[in-house]
Amino acid sequence: MTIAEATRARLDSLAKPPGSLGRLERLAIRLAETQGRVDPSAAPRRLIVFAGDHGVVAEGVGLWPDSVTTAMMRLMLEGRAGSAALARGAGAEMVLVDAGSKAEGLSGEAYRDWRVARGTANLAQGPAMSAPEFEAALAVGARAAAEADAAGVRVLALGEMGIGNTTPAACLAALLARVEPARVIGPGAGATAESLARKQAVVTEAVARARALKDPRTAIAAVAGFEIAAIAGCIAEAARRGLTVVLDGFIVGAGALVAQALDPAAMEACIAAHRSAEPGHALVLERLGLEPFLDWEMRLGEGTGALLLLPMLDAAGSLLRDVATLAEVTGG
Amino acid sequence: MTIAEATRARLDSLAKPPGSLGRLERLAIRLAETQGRVDPSAAPRRLIVFAGDHGVVAEGVGLWPDSVTTAMMRLMLEGRAGSAALARGAGAEMVLVDAGSKAEGLSGEAYRDWRVARGTANLAQGPAMSAPEFEAALAVGARAAAEADAAGVRVLALGEMGIGNTTPAACLAALLARVEPARVIGPGAGATAESLARKQAVVTEAVARARALKDPRTAIAAVAGFEIAAIAGCIAEAARRGLTVVLDGFIVGAGALVAQALDPAAMEACIAAHRSAEPGHALVLERLGLEPFLDWEMRLGEGTGALLLLPMLDAAGSLLRDVATLAEVTGG
Repeated sequence: MTIAEATRARLDSLAKPPGSLGRLERLAIRLAETQGRVDPSAAPRRLIVFAGDHGVVAEGVGLWPDSVTTAMMRLMLEGRAGSAALARGAGAEMVLVDAGSKAEGLSGEAYRDWRVARGTANLAQGPAMSAPEFEAALAVGARAAAEADAAGVRVLALGEMGIGNTTPAACLAALLARVEPARVIGPGAGATAESLARKQAVVTEAVARARALKDPRTAIAAVAGFEIAAIAGCIAEAARRGLTVVLDGFIVGAGALVAQALDPAAMEACIAAHRSAEPGHALVLERLGLEPFLDWEMRLGEGTGALLLLPMLDAAGSLLRDVATLAEVTGG
Repeated sequence: MTIAEATRARLDSLAKPPGSLGRLERLAIRLAETQGRVDPSAAPRRLIVFAGDHGVVAEGVGLWPDSVTTAMMRLMLEGRAGSAALARGAGAEMVLVDAGSKAEGLSGEAYRDWRVARGTANLAQGPAMSAPEFEAALAVGARAAAEADAAGVRVLALGEMGIGNTTPAACLAALLARVEPARVIGPGAGATAESLARKQAVVTEAVARARALKDPRTAIAAVAGFEIAAIAGCIAEAARRGLTVVLDGFIVGAGALVAQALDPAAMEACIAAHRSAEPGHALVLERLGLEPFLDWEMRLGEGTGALLLLPMLDAAGSLLRDVATLAEVTGG
């Protein structure tokens, strides 16, 4: 009997009409699968936000300057960003892993300055990073997963911060989910018709160049971001350690595509929290083979969508642990 | 400026792209509206489950006997029902208000034996309850709301338990949402083709008889249940006191239809947690004018769907209180 079958049998034995908790039951099964046990834990949990800056911002692909990455990282460390507020409410400790931002002067207990470099190169002009940089960024993510595991964490909610990062994410989605760039271009944190057109031109060209490269890791590195590669490394290491990974939106999804490309088994650790408003995300989820549990038109990033699902994981876990069986009630 | 406009302005001033939290922002606005303030509270909160038995069970409209109502009430009081488990996880105290069950031997700190009678009369044979009984059931609900308010509760999650209660709920939906009975008949906690056919015949006849009655309260009483009328009374009193009411599924929705029929202003207190798998629920929500926030195919009742939304209310409240404004970040 698989874990999914055993969990379904447990759910069907409870004192309630079979299937009557709908999607919550599917979430319970998924949680059990990610941990390989029918009594999975939804806690302790940690929000890990991976941050990075992007050389491609110089191309005018979005509306915000690099400095906003730093400002938002500072706000997270002060506990006053959207992610920080929701993390407190969801009972998740927050860690901010700097995989490659240009930030100066940040500090705090939650801050990990594990930078590979200060921002990627401009992917419109050449590879965003070298092969060794790509491996180093994967290792940053793996280190974050190992640190969480050592602290007893069972569930990781993944988020990101990086002005311009919908552009590398769109490149990775086009490259790895094998769809036309036009289908994965969205407004990100803000866009005009002009910036969107530039973004599409940049993505189309960069993806064409990446597709021409023979080595898949080199192709990915050419259009990735440090925080995105770190997310991939974190997912891979979490999967090896049997931790549950709750994915946020489009950017984290692009990181998951990278993890999947390197090792498809890593997807067994993942739960897709939601389908975001960013148009490419649905295609990414399809490619990942994951069902999104919420469809709340969110597109903030920072892990906010993943955080919103954490209390549902509590409910799913509690269902499996704390509810009486029908046999107990009827004495049968 | 309305509360909704003021809340939207507050959300748009935060350090995030406007609208980027999608449905969570609409939930924040709705929460603010129900409490008439831009800094609403999602706690303290209480799950109130209203229970009752139904004479119509004698007609074979479902698969379960009355004794299951008692068994499930006992399980709730022992903390081992689905609702009790989810209530603990959601930080909601649980109160079980017996508005008219046939239960014997129940006790516990959470139990309120405020019964109008021991089960309704069989609505297939005559009125389910008399006019004075209907008023008494409304008063039971009002008493539960007043008790919660006195204890400092700000948010009520409403649930129900009562074998057979999808039959009176279907009658009320047909009567008050003015749709054909066939459109609001569903399987409830379990059905065969035969029991469904009986249920439809019973509902069609009872609704025709109720529609012929001139006085609306008498018509409602003829096809109601004690727990459903109590839910209506609870919503009305909670609205008068400025409490937020989180509605569960189809049965609670039928109670809300009754509250709306008696005083449309009561809907201002209500948030629809979810759209249930019971087919009539979507029509009920449409008539109530409420947007459901979750669509998780739930149909357990007991308030489980309402409980699942409570952490989202925490997130919505925290957004309005704890997130920095863009002006603070940019120094503008």
